[in-house]
Amino acid sequence: MIALEQFHTFLKKKGFIYPSSEIYGGVSGLYDYGHLGTLLKRNLENTWRNFFLNLDQNYYEIDACQIMHHDVFKASGHIEHFLDPVLNCSKCAFFDRADHFLAENTEEQHLEGLNLKKYDSLIKSHKLKCPKCKSPFQQTKLINMMFPINLGTGQSNTAYLRPETAQSPYVDFKLQYELQRKKLPLGLAIIGKAFRNEISPRNLTLRQREFTQAELQIFFNPENFPTNFKKVENYKLNILLVKDRKTKKTKSLACKSLKKQLPEWYLYHLATVQKFFLETLKIPKEKFRLFELNKEERAFYNKFHFDIEVELNNLGFTEIGGLHYRTDHDLSGHQEVSKQSLEIMDEHNKKFIPHVLEISLGVDRMLYSLLDLAYQENKKRGNVILSLPKKLSPFFCAVFPLVKNKPAITKKAQKVYQDLKTCYSCFYDQTSSVGRRYARADEVGIPYIITVDFDTLKDNKVTIRDLKTTKQTRVKISELKDKLFKLYFS
Amino acid sequence: MIALEQFHTFLKKKGFIYPSSEIYGGVSGLYDYGHLGTLLKRNLENTWRNFFLNLDQNYYEIDACQIMHHDVFKASGHIEHFLDPVLNCSKCAFFDRADHFLAENTEEQHLEGLNLKKYDSLIKSHKLKCPKCKSPFQQTKLINMMFPINLGTGQSNTAYLRPETAQSPYVDFKLQYELQRKKLPLGLAIIGKAFRNEISPRNLTLRQREFTQAELQIFFNPENFPTNFKKVENYKLNILLVKDRKTKKTKSLACKSLKKQLPEWYLYHLATVQKFFLETLKIPKEKFRLFELNKEERAFYNKFHFDIEVELNNLGFTEIGGLHYRTDHDLSGHQEVSKQSLEIMDEHNKKFIPHVLEISLGVDRMLYSLLDLAYQENKKRGNVILSLPKKLSPFFCAVFPLVKNKPAITKKAQKVYQDLKTCYSCFYDQTSSVGRRYARADEVGIPYIITVDFDTLKDNKVTIRDLKTTKQTRVKISELKDKLFKLYFS
Repeated sequence: MIALEQFHTFLKKKGFIYPSSEIYGGVSGLYDYGHLGTLLKRNLENTWRNFFLNLDQNYYEIDACQIMHHDVFKASGHIEHFLDPVLNCSKCAFFDRADHFLAENTEEQHLEGLNLKKYDSLIKSHKLKCPKCKSPFQQTKLINMMFPINLGTGQSNTAYLRPETAQSPYVDFKLQYELQRKKLPLGLAIIGKAFRNEISPRNLTLRQREFTQAELQIFFNPENFPTNFKKVENYKLNILLVKDRKTKKTKSLACKSLKKQLPEWYLYHLATVQKFFLETLKIPKEKFRLFELNKEERAFYNKFHFDIEVELNNLGFTEIGGLHYRTDHDLSGHQEVSKQSLEIMDEHNKKFIPHVLEISLGVDRMLYSLLDLAYQENKKRGNVILSLPKKLSPFFCAVFPLVKNKPAITKKAQKVYQDLKTCYSCFYDQTSSVGRRYARADEVGIPYIITVDFDTLKDNKVTIRDLKTTKQTRVKISELKDKLFKLYFS
Repeated sequence: MIALEQFHTFLKKKGFIYPSSEIYGGVSGLYDYGHLGTLLKRNLENTWRNFFLNLDQNYYEIDACQIMHHDVFKASGHIEHFLDPVLNCSKCAFFDRADHFLAENTEEQHLEGLNLKKYDSLIKSHKLKCPKCKSPFQQTKLINMMFPINLGTGQSNTAYLRPETAQSPYVDFKLQYELQRKKLPLGLAIIGKAFRNEISPRNLTLRQREFTQAELQIFFNPENFPTNFKKVENYKLNILLVKDRKTKKTKSLACKSLKKQLPEWYLYHLATVQKFFLETLKIPKEKFRLFELNKEERAFYNKFHFDIEVELNNLGFTEIGGLHYRTDHDLSGHQEVSKQSLEIMDEHNKKFIPHVLEISLGVDRMLYSLLDLAYQENKKRGNVILSLPKKLSPFFCAVFPLVKNKPAITKKAQKVYQDLKTCYSCFYDQTSSVGRRYARADEVGIPYIITVDFDTLKDNKVTIRDLKTTKQTRVKISELKDKLFKLYFS
């Protein structure tokens, strides 16, 4: 297994992910995607769209501002509750999140969300001091994790960068409902940025201050949320329930066996999310689990909450997202503060406030997981292979002329490349030996390499080399596009 | 011509653009894209990518953080120079940009960038008072238009939301250069958000506080920037030069006729940008112009600067973007402040700092222009037609069952729809009469409507209706996909 730091260096060297503003020493918790990272991110976002927006004809994507009105967060509870406990050194500039600091320096567990006096007493009982200058700590304080934005001039007009994309669909719900079929369930999706003033950002893009979420908010009538449960009732979920937590063993349970604890519509969506990870993102089954949160761990408004977790190298099972039944908490809050009715009518002309099921996924976290699980050091080939799902790879194919100093060959290769790139994300490379080029292509996960060689000039055929097997197949240029089309869907 | 306010109501009603956080009264200068606006924006962004990233094999997209290090903006000059003159009322809360306020309330012209005393003397000589309470104004002040962000806790660690995407490629340049072919020209593109604390946001998405830019930064050696000038030398630019400004007449001039004033590589890119607007976005030629800025108008570091303008209803020629030759201003500034060498070697092993040509376009402004020019009230049909370029339309096609109470027909229509939407952005509608559905589809610019009728049940054929001509063609269902494919590229 590659060490964490070495893996992050690999990601930088290949142009996937590197620190933002790096020539200025970087900024903690901010990362940029290089040219390959950007292609992968775009493919991943489009894959998410294709999957989740196609779950229902009444699901739509919207694109909303990241800066939002002050009162949005009064209603959502973020101004009052979105707080982190911070430990400051009494002398030097050191600070950390109290719960993180305790977790790393003691054997204590379940440290999130305690009251401040409890943190102070734990610091005292473990005799913890500032790791930098050995001075005692100040009393633990709470700070709000949102970034305030002052709009305009002179007058105090505070807005906030949204800490989750979710609030935009909630605020826009009534208008979009009126614009659509006036029918539930209604899904509003956003792929967009969210911002949190993390006290201790860590693990590259897994905990950032600026990050991309892909969230689908499904508004539904709690008395009637029709789903095709029949289709998934025998589907087995990889699941770790609260009651099984002491065994630490993930179980494989058919949806129908959980009907006593969870409603059909919730189970249906657990299955849907798992299918996305296993079948679309190709995450190995044993590296995926749905992790149930207990009452203390989940937000007070979440009636059901399972984290979506992937097991990463070095880091173990890591939260990539969550499936949250938020009840009518959000819309009720916005109705109360905005004084705008967010109620709608059911089929019996009874007014009600829709409930919300949220499928929340971190784009950066999914992307990191894909790279983490794709990385393989292949001893036989003597190089790294990035074994990404082929539809997600930054480049689906590449064209190489066998040698670069034969104009007839490079010209032909350029022609093949120009033609392929109208259909496929395609890369062209003629520098260094063809062996080195194969190795470089392996490292960035290009599934198919097309090579133009001396024989091509005679028979108008090229070879297609498969990343995973290294098997080469000879194909007529005139049939190349169709052949790749079949491989894309194979 | 539709009145401005009425047009903006249309855009809201159809789900293109509406005020952000609207249930809280909105926030000045912030707008959300609804479901159709989002589809259109995504198509536009992908169209931009296809066009500009394909200009050269050495052009790449990156995806960088919006929050950037404090020193980025010290180096770029934004902390010192990115200021607007603000007029505050001495009594009430009224404020406005001094130059905008003077432009609207006097006959004065060329008011941007004057010194503060000049604004005060103009206010005095025109005897202007606060329009709200008639009190006198305070002295004009300068405020910085960037939004500061305080990271972490306790310590002052100020960063900024970037006011233009451009700074990310500048800061990332050296790293990306090393990761790529180590060859110039190198293009780094970003489609992303930028933020400005506009004093007086206006005209919907034309001047916002949070907006999306599509910018391509081309790094090149000023001694050798090879372009295919031959290809455009006879291409005629729609251009308004400084020297022709008093005539107010846009001229149509072949690129080669401008070779005395502008280098070939700059003319080549003027032609490229014009082709994008005319041939890809289908902006009518007479509604497009390249507007040269004079020395006072352009930023001091821009050696050549043409605004890219489109003539809009109600608003006249409006800036949509610009082509800026920024010299080595940016990289030199970052080198000086970061103390990191941003020099590279030319082919004679001479060190130099690359120069930058920036193609900067506002995504929101392009999108607004497309909608503005597409809007037509068709008296004959008695409804609005949104005549968007068909590759950009939110939906490329729609499927309608002729009637909704014949299960055989709706089932067939659903089947056709499910099949088409694997290839095309497709909409399904069975509510209300087919005539009303045609009208609604016209209003959101769906180029092709497929109708399943009683005959379909017998002959397995459907009709395709053309938005622009209303002409209907009957096609076999088995040939529908291919037919639409041809129409897509026609």
